[in-house]
Amino acid sequence: MKENNNSKVSKKGQIYQKETKRIEQDQVEGRNSVIELLEGDRDINKIFVQAGEKHGSINKIIAMAKEKRIIISEISKEKINQMARTENPQGVIAIVPPFNYVSVEDILFKASTLQEEPFIVILDGIEDVHNLGSIIRTAETAGVHGIIIPKRRAASVNATVNKVSAGAVEHMKIARVNNIVETMKYLKEKGLWICGTDMETKSYYYDQNLKGPLALVIGSEGFGMNRLVKENCDFLVKIPMKGKITSLNASVSAGIVIYEAMKQRN
Amino acid sequence: MKENNNSKVSKKGQIYQKETKRIEQDQVEGRNSVIELLEGDRDINKIFVQAGEKHGSINKIIAMAKEKRIIISEISKEKINQMARTENPQGVIAIVPPFNYVSVEDILFKASTLQEEPFIVILDGIEDVHNLGSIIRTAETAGVHGIIIPKRRAASVNATVNKVSAGAVEHMKIARVNNIVETMKYLKEKGLWICGTDMETKSYYYDQNLKGPLALVIGSEGFGMNRLVKENCDFLVKIPMKGKITSLNASVSAGIVIYEAMKQRN
Repeated sequence: MKENNNSKVSKKGQIYQKETKRIEQDQVEGRNSVIELLEGDRDINKIFVQAGEKHGSINKIIAMAKEKRIIISEISKEKINQMARTENPQGVIAIVPPFNYVSVEDILFKASTLQEEPFIVILDGIEDVHNLGSIIRTAETAGVHGIIIPKRRAASVNATVNKVSAGAVEHMKIARVNNIVETMKYLKEKGLWICGTDMETKSYYYDQNLKGPLALVIGSEGFGMNRLVKENCDFLVKIPMKGKITSLNASVSAGIVIYEAMKQRN
Repeated sequence: MKENNNSKVSKKGQIYQKETKRIEQDQVEGRNSVIELLEGDRDINKIFVQAGEKHGSINKIIAMAKEKRIIISEISKEKINQMARTENPQGVIAIVPPFNYVSVEDILFKASTLQEEPFIVILDGIEDVHNLGSIIRTAETAGVHGIIIPKRRAASVNATVNKVSAGAVEHMKIARVNNIVETMKYLKEKGLWICGTDMETKSYYYDQNLKGPLALVIGSEGFGMNRLVKENCDFLVKIPMKGKITSLNASVSAGIVIYEAMKQRN
């Protein structure tokens, strides 16, 4: 019924329909990312493999997929590259339901299940998908329980993020929220300390206590944290800069502060 | 004379000529990178600016270039984008002599001029220009005196590296050497400690003393350090991994270890 309706809609409606279709399924590309995907719990609709590819890791993917009774389809190199949303799909693309965002409560629940103090990363407007993927990867290796991103004006999880993260998105709880400041207030109520990263403070990241229930806020690439977000942090830390360049790449500065917290907590 | 000779060479000779021409000049693209360039000491042959662009930073570039008596040429947006070697040149491309690599002695000399213990980063085969640019940026902000890269099988400084580094290449001494192992032996003779980063060691990067004359070796993205390079390190350190993903992005792990050394040395 709905399909019939949709087939008669205006041009605007067609665009809407196209967008709906676009988010109904997602792709995971590249050998390592697909292997990580197969090792995780996420549903997989289908896996496309480049015909004739007989690399060790492609064979591993085919064997794992067979075990999980996932449909495998061999297609030409041209078709793979046509479908690909990243630069080099390495002969394999998995079709999956859209990324499963969780709630902030789910993240807190994960920490309590592990009997650990919550360790959360809040990204206040990271726009570059490479930075987002790289930060998810770092957070996963550092044992962060979850990442919170805003719904608007920020990168969200897609095929590139998945690939850059080396498949870490499959193991990371990510919540998308309407309002970062409201979420920070909620986390404070739950007993977390909110630490922001900002150049305009005097305390270095390694001089602060980053143990206990913690949410680390990382600002956007160009503008850092939003004013209201900054005002709602419990304390701010900065990374010392000794050279002529006065800022670091967002994923590098996130890595430096996340690993300081990880070191203190271990 | 030489030009006359060149005009009669074989096809192989023509390719050689083309390559020679290619490395005779280099490009620096993007507003921040060109501003960094203008603030540095490097020669600039010419600056192309997109006609009609009146952004604050473009005006700043034009004013700085005029002061330094550098030729400015206004060309169309299409021409700028045609010339560009990076994705988004932001309406400005500077033409410069090829990147000026230094010798390892120059790096040691810089440290001694600053009356600091040498702090050097050795990249054993970083292949991705984005990683190289990002590591140069981190090293510059952390006060590293110089970076050593191999001549073969590794990324070298180009327009993308410059842009990703946010112009840090203009302030960083970079040496390109034939043999990393020989260079490590030379640095040991000069009194430096060589610290490698490797997963197969038990000591964490934050448990090691990274003060004093130091060279930090970062391995390549896929394979880490070469066996001989590893064997010639004085000691190895690793970054703890708590998640399911067992490696970090090369520029993030470089950032974590470089900043630990910076913190200890400050």
